[in-house]
Amino acid sequence: MARSLPNEIIITDNRKFRRVVRTPGADFVNLPSGSVSIRQLAEIGVGGMFAINGKRYYVLECDTYDLVMKGIRRDTQIIYPKDAGYILLRLDVFPGKRVGEAGTGSGGLTLIMARAVGRSGRVYTYEKNLSLAGTIRKNLAPAEEFENVCLYNTPVEEGINESGLDAFFLDVRDPAEALGPVYNALKPGGHLGVLVPTSNQMTRLLWALRDYPFIITEAVEIFLRTYKTNPSRFRPEDRMVGHTGYLLFARALQDTAHAESEQE
Amino acid sequence: MARSLPNEIIITDNRKFRRVVRTPGADFVNLPSGSVSIRQLAEIGVGGMFAINGKRYYVLECDTYDLVMKGIRRDTQIIYPKDAGYILLRLDVFPGKRVGEAGTGSGGLTLIMARAVGRSGRVYTYEKNLSLAGTIRKNLAPAEEFENVCLYNTPVEEGINESGLDAFFLDVRDPAEALGPVYNALKPGGHLGVLVPTSNQMTRLLWALRDYPFIITEAVEIFLRTYKTNPSRFRPEDRMVGHTGYLLFARALQDTAHAESEQE
Amino acid sequence: MARSLPNEIIITDNRKFRRVVRTPGADFVNLPSGSVSIRQLAEIGVGGMFAINGKRYYVLECDTYDLVMKGIRRDTQIIYPKDAGYILLRLDVFPGKRVGEAGTGSGGLTLIMARAVGRSGRVYTYEKNLSLAGTIRKNLAPAEEFENVCLYNTPVEEGINESGLDAFFLDVRDPAEALGPVYNALKPGGHLGVLVPTSNQMTRLLWALRDYPFIITEAVEIFLRTYKTNPSRFRPEDRMVGHTGYLLFARALQDTAHAESEQE
Amino acid sequence: MARSLPNEIIITDNRKFRRVVRTPGADFVNLPSGSVSIRQLAEIGVGGMFAINGKRYYVLECDTYDLVMKGIRRDTQIIYPKDAGYILLRLDVFPGKRVGEAGTGSGGLTLIMARAVGRSGRVYTYEKNLSLAGTIRKNLAPAEEFENVCLYNTPVEEGINESGLDAFFLDVRDPAEALGPVYNALKPGGHLGVLVPTSNQMTRLLWALRDYPFIITEAVEIFLRTYKTNPSRFRPEDRMVGHTGYLLFARALQDTAHAESEQE
Repeated sequence: MARSLPNEIIITDNRKFRRVVRTPGADFVNLPSGSVSIRQLAEIGVGGMFAINGKRYYVLECDTYDLVMKGIRRDTQIIYPKDAGYILLRLDVFPGKRVGEAGTGSGGLTLIMARAVGRSGRVYTYEKNLSLAGTIRKNLAPAEEFENVCLYNTPVEEGINESGLDAFFLDVRDPAEALGPVYNALKPGGHLGVLVPTSNQMTRLLWALRDYPFIITEAVEIFLRTYKTNPSRFRPEDRMVGHTGYLLFARALQDTAHAESEQE
Repeated sequence: MARSLPNEIIITDNRKFRRVVRTPGADFVNLPSGSVSIRQLAEIGVGGMFAINGKRYYVLECDTYDLVMKGIRRDTQIIYPKDAGYILLRLDVFPGKRVGEAGTGSGGLTLIMARAVGRSGRVYTYEKNLSLAGTIRKNLAPAEEFENVCLYNTPVEEGINESGLDAFFLDVRDPAEALGPVYNALKPGGHLGVLVPTSNQMTRLLWALRDYPFIITEAVEIFLRTYKTNPSRFRPEDRMVGHTGYLLFARALQDTAHAESEQE
Repeated sequence: MARSLPNEIIITDNRKFRRVVRTPGADFVNLPSGSVSIRQLAEIGVGGMFAINGKRYYVLECDTYDLVMKGIRRDTQIIYPKDAGYILLRLDVFPGKRVGEAGTGSGGLTLIMARAVGRSGRVYTYEKNLSLAGTIRKNLAPAEEFENVCLYNTPVEEGINESGLDAFFLDVRDPAEALGPVYNALKPGGHLGVLVPTSNQMTRLLWALRDYPFIITEAVEIFLRTYKTNPSRFRPEDRMVGHTGYLLFARALQDTAHAESEQE
Repeated sequence: MARSLPNEIIITDNRKFRRVVRTPGADFVNLPSGSVSIRQLAEIGVGGMFAINGKRYYVLECDTYDLVMKGIRRDTQIIYPKDAGYILLRLDVFPGKRVGEAGTGSGGLTLIMARAVGRSGRVYTYEKNLSLAGTIRKNLAPAEEFENVCLYNTPVEEGINESGLDAFFLDVRDPAEALGPVYNALKPGGHLGVLVPTSNQMTRLLWALRDYPFIITEAVEIFLRTYKTNPSRFRPEDRMVGHTGYLLFARALQDTAHAESEQE
């Protein structure tokens, strides 16, 4: 008897090969050593193993990490999981929260935040590059839960439609220009997060923040080093990612709180 | 007119001083430069600023990060946010998920996972050290939402009451001993996460995993480096955390998938 | 029979205690658990062990690393061995080389470079802060070989007396201001090294370098992480140095080579 | 008038292209965009620039770093400069020192140590893999100063011909097996350095060291992160080396010092 498969599964050889498969509407999946039918995959089931021409594959439910790393089309640099996980915590992106984001890029962080806030929450995401709209919609399509995402194809600098947001994340070229609209969209005490690749951008951002009622809580960078998992030769991999970006976190104050601060 | 305050707030001078205050039942808060009443804090409101004897403080809603870093009593080493954020992503801990954990320790990760799975999810946490029970209950008390946490004061090695869990996280001295019960508690394709401080523990764990139907997806370590935020002198802090632990992630296979694997 | 002791020895408990002792002229050494005479130390000899009131100590010849880390008076931030070792290699500071340096600071790198170039080489070091002169002279005093060091109490920006130097290292607040004199002091192909703590300084330096006939070979930062050496619990130390400085390396071109480059 | 060229020069476009050229006996050098004669290079001189078919090249004296990174044939994993520089400092490898090494590998560290000890010093290097002998001899050939290197094609475990050495560096598969011969070859207080790629090797080494009169001074690992040098976009490179090896440093005690230690 065939078990039912999730809408998205991942097929992997647990080495280099990892492929996300959207099962509805698909008939066959082409793999490096041959092909397998969706019906066969349903019989194998999640957590199952199969072999084609002597090569083994495993069937797993596609989780959010898999989706972002292997299941979405990347037309821009994505925000890496090492950064995204910390962003979730630092911006307090949990069920029911209303959070904003600009730019959407390929939608990787959008997808992660949409999962994190759940059906009772909401993600408002701004992307000025119109050519990305198709990619984003495709990347956010897989699951119905992403109906909690609202995508605007407008520059965040031109204004944010929401107010009283719990948090806002900026991944744009010049985040300083967006600080006014973002401040207005946040509730008092709301969280601001920013990623910038260069120290020059960070310097400009730190200067610009002095003109707005925010207090900076942290500037960080995160390194992730992977290890080989041979138990008799436990050691780090030879190469690693050297840089993705610098992260800045701040919290919005009441407007009057900052005005007093200015009198110093 | 007094605004209403959240149950937990954080009062900070945005330098070294950060204190979490539970507002229900409290009258006054003692701060380094004097004291302030809860009634005054309510008038100031979240995002507001006040000064006592020339020293400024800010009132912020206490978020999950603040709670774990400053609001809980630490009777054990906690899992740091740099690791916790990545664990959430890697174990796919999102709204509605049913996840397990051992040992609870001071309950920092428990609290984060409880927030992440939300009211529709569930966290089952095992701690064999009875003397920690009081600390954990106190740390998990702040918000009613933590009714989604179920705490067992039993060693995880003696068995797990649940089955079909989406994920399980191990932070115990000898995780190899818990692999059997954890495997049985996980659904096929379910996520395993482990933190160990030493390379010797990781080596033993990697050997032990060979006896169970898991595939290892990643072994990593995460570094977080904080920066000074003076825009004219942007540079990392002089000191940083050098190590918390090694993280291992794996996924449970069907029992038969592993049996076949054994025939190699 | 008493063995002869080197002029500088180090006495250590191989834990936290490490003390450099200059033996000529000394009679007794006070240690945490009591005192020991130089005559006794001479009988124990280098590589020997002794105990005072149940606490053990080891006698070792004081090497260059020990001298810089424990044997010199630090009136300024020193250049750490993790950086100094790489600087030696990158500036090709080997026996017989003539190298320059500014500012001298406490003289740690001066001492290392003086050892590296040996009797046939020469180190010219510039320090404008007159109050450091005493410290530097004291720090460089221990061994006669430091007669290969020439100390100038003048700002490097005001000019360098030497020419045709093999390498020059800058550890001053605004290295851009010293580029002209340093270029003139270097031979064609000579090595430039710079350490700056902030990214803003590095940015200014990179702009300034465009006006001089140098080619940049590398900008780096170096992390050193120490490990606990318990064989059954091999793991990194909890804390580490997060930052000392950014290092830049370049090589001087002939003046005409740069002029042509300008025509682009 | 032709200037004289050093025996080894490096020709670089200051981007990816870097080639070490041994000038004696050579007539022409083939470069990506054409060829240049040694006579022309001599006219251009060190620090000079030339262009072939619109592509620019720079002529520099080949320093020790260039030689190790680009000028030697690599039949084995070399010891990286980030590690080699620190090894020089930690083993106190300075002019006049007598140091040992095993295994020689491709001879990169041999060459660096030979330069560091100079004509008055000596490097004794052991390599059991006979097939490497040709590579090593070729790699050490460039400069007459390497006559201070003595190469043995024998396993270090079978014995070391020297005694009273100032330092010894081990880069062999199982350094524990070499500890006896190395201890006997070192003077009291002499320096031991070891590089091992895996944590398992380090654990075995730490256990083995307990049987010998050494005190461990440090176990470390070193990270080097390179930066892009565009002054308006100062940021780390996307990728970096994640691991080369763990380094251990120790110092030899007198035999009796350890014997007493055993009585604990």
